[in-house]
Amino acid sequence: MQFELTREYIDDLRELIDQKNENEAKAMIEDLHAADIADILDELNTEEAVYIFLLLDGDTGADVLAEIEEDDRRRFIKVLPIEVIAKKFIDHMDSDDAADLIGGLSDEKQEEILSHIDDIETAGDIVDLLHYAEDTAGGLMGKELVIVNENWTVLTCLRELSRQAEDIDEIYYVYVVDDDNKLIGTLSLKKMILSPTSAKIINIYEPDVMSVHTDASDEEVSLIMEKYDLVALPVVDSIGRLMGRITIDDVVDVIRDEAEKDYQMASGISEDIEANDSIWLQTRARLPWLLIGLAGGILSAMVISTHESGLIATPAMAFFIPLITAMGGNVGVQSSAIIVQGLASNSLGFESTFSRLLRELGGACVNGITCSSLLFTYNYFFSDSYALTISVSAALLSVIIFASATGTLIPLMLNKIKIDPALATGPFITTLNDIIGLLIYLSIGAYFYGVF
Amino acid sequence: MQFELTREYIDDLRELIDQKNENEAKAMIEDLHAADIADILDELNTEEAVYIFLLLDGDTGADVLAEIEEDDRRRFIKVLPIEVIAKKFIDHMDSDDAADLIGGLSDEKQEEILSHIDDIETAGDIVDLLHYAEDTAGGLMGKELVIVNENWTVLTCLRELSRQAEDIDEIYYVYVVDDDNKLIGTLSLKKMILSPTSAKIINIYEPDVMSVHTDASDEEVSLIMEKYDLVALPVVDSIGRLMGRITIDDVVDVIRDEAEKDYQMASGISEDIEANDSIWLQTRARLPWLLIGLAGGILSAMVISTHESGLIATPAMAFFIPLITAMGGNVGVQSSAIIVQGLASNSLGFESTFSRLLRELGGACVNGITCSSLLFTYNYFFSDSYALTISVSAALLSVIIFASATGTLIPLMLNKIKIDPALATGPFITTLNDIIGLLIYLSIGAYFYGVF
Repeated sequence: MQFELTREYIDDLRELIDQKNENEAKAMIEDLHAADIADILDELNTEEAVYIFLLLDGDTGADVLAEIEEDDRRRFIKVLPIEVIAKKFIDHMDSDDAADLIGGLSDEKQEEILSHIDDIETAGDIVDLLHYAEDTAGGLMGKELVIVNENWTVLTCLRELSRQAEDIDEIYYVYVVDDDNKLIGTLSLKKMILSPTSAKIINIYEPDVMSVHTDASDEEVSLIMEKYDLVALPVVDSIGRLMGRITIDDVVDVIRDEAEKDYQMASGISEDIEANDSIWLQTRARLPWLLIGLAGGILSAMVISTHESGLIATPAMAFFIPLITAMGGNVGVQSSAIIVQGLASNSLGFESTFSRLLRELGGACVNGITCSSLLFTYNYFFSDSYALTISVSAALLSVIIFASATGTLIPLMLNKIKIDPALATGPFITTLNDIIGLLIYLSIGAYFYGVF
Repeated sequence: MQFELTREYIDDLRELIDQKNENEAKAMIEDLHAADIADILDELNTEEAVYIFLLLDGDTGADVLAEIEEDDRRRFIKVLPIEVIAKKFIDHMDSDDAADLIGGLSDEKQEEILSHIDDIETAGDIVDLLHYAEDTAGGLMGKELVIVNENWTVLTCLRELSRQAEDIDEIYYVYVVDDDNKLIGTLSLKKMILSPTSAKIINIYEPDVMSVHTDASDEEVSLIMEKYDLVALPVVDSIGRLMGRITIDDVVDVIRDEAEKDYQMASGISEDIEANDSIWLQTRARLPWLLIGLAGGILSAMVISTHESGLIATPAMAFFIPLITAMGGNVGVQSSAIIVQGLASNSLGFESTFSRLLRELGGACVNGITCSSLLFTYNYFFSDSYALTISVSAALLSVIIFASATGTLIPLMLNKIKIDPALATGPFITTLNDIIGLLIYLSIGAYFYGVF
């Protein structure tokens, strides 16, 4: 059942496009899932992709438009006539996907597209959704939901269902509201099927319903849906009226994006980029962190230069500079990654910062003593300077302990003052630990040598 | 509707447990969601947690047991009588959760628990599931599904549904099979509700159904469910017979775990650990990478020591060692993170390794020239050695380009020989780039100074 995209497939399709062989090209993509077609368009150039895109029927086209990468979407919208976008595709999209799509355009383009949509209700839903910020529950939600009144019977519900469900792909829950449209519970399809048709909703609905406010953040939404294993989550306004619903497929994207973002930050990448993005985007996302690293390197050079005379006297001290900075960096990144992940998945619990730090330092002592003993043994046999052997090992132990403390404390502190703690990981913490590690190393060296 | 766990709440609950005040303790937890109760147990010690656990009814207890962290689960199973676990909890669990739980125990314990389960069908399902490896589709799937035969009518289906659905929390799809139990399609509840009761399934079912083989990997399953926005995915054996279904909530965990694992690897953490794990676990997960870093540091020391005489002549060369190693490390991590993420989300497409490398090198040139020009300017004004100014900047440019090449190629190569490319990120690539960076730096320095 599953389609596997191959290079041959793309080459064949390209040839058909070249020949303007509409029928065979159509036959090649006809039975594919929208997500697969989106992958195919991703491999074609704009002209070819638009050609294929215009072969799709409205429903498939709308699904594809919702699935493709944002960059691809932008290049499509640019070349397609506004009326085609509106009539052929937006009209067939779920309201949340349509709002996402339109939200990225200029105000004039938005108005133009909306003016071409025939169904006033659809246009109204999209306009409503455009008010919400993209990364809030309001921005994630769609307007497609099945709503029943608490005073109806199962029979009325079934009738309403056939009416309301026409435009909805899949129904997971039926939401129950009171006369003021306030959300009071859910009704599972299973329950509805298994109850007599004369039963009143008020007697069979499930009053325990999890919901979020329209301005809840997308992270909050994903944590709730993940924790409570929800497939759909209703969104309410400040007085509890049902405004829309968020489905799990949109949240899966948020979860992956969040996890990827933290990883990218830790790797010194400041924007959400992908392997296939342009050189320009890739450079822009990476350069800021490299400049921090550069500044850190220059500071390190200044720190070392203050010990120039010592270095001339005992050049062997320079040999272990990379070891000290690398170990400080590694330990700092390890400690901060654990904290950042714990904060992201909300699993840190109630342990106080102090006891967490103590535990972290305990671990650092174990690792630090292991590593510096090994280094001591190495230098004992292979170095002829006793002072060097002691200073390098003592410095390594101190640097490991210090780096694990900063790695733990800095993300916790940033989180407290509402700055994304992931900022602390990667180049930032590595650079800081480099400089402090050098200070520690050179000071200890100076003490033991008496020359630095 | 949402419960927020506070320290006060835990303190209050603890007091009630101390007083053995069963009724009030029960009242405090009664209306909570299983996921919230699991969070509460996580904050209590084993004795307290077991006390609360035994207050729960079977259904809630089973849900809580499925939700709690694996460590917590293990300490529970250790202290609770086997019969209580079997009769009170396992009997109420979904088959996949039960199999996960039992799978972690010794063979004798498994048999003992299974012998206490009254429902032979449930026990049989669990035994079936125990055959599959945990990280395959078979290991993820549950046996709870609603199956209808293609030759039935909607009326028969509805009747069967009430019988089969008794033990199933939520029905997302009804699966349609032929007389050999081979999966041939799905039927949505919506369709069933909206069709006349006399309609034959064969005329209304949806034949396009995505499925996976029992031994598909969990990563494959998550990529399919994510890509096609599925809430449930049926699992079939090698001749296409329907064996079970995987639900999205289990896959959300896989997605988060995968993303976290890559991030942890990049941060030099080799096992899946959390902030609250013991010092011992934390140390064990981190030490291997630190030892790699240590070995790399010693190698770096050897590299530098071969240039000892040069360092004595021009100690300023030592000042920029941390800058060179740090920049090489940062660039390598940036490049490899992009590739590792692209491989994980299967979004690399068909670009050849060569053209990918070319693009990466293009970006590296832009960043490298920017950084080395800045460094050149700095040294031009603040250093008195022309040779130093040139060698440091030239070395920086080479190191950035070299590091971006290794960062791109190594994960791609590892992936080709079926080793997890995430291994290449973090300490491994940083260490490699440190050593090569130093070699480049010192050689360039030696050339320009004529003394090294």
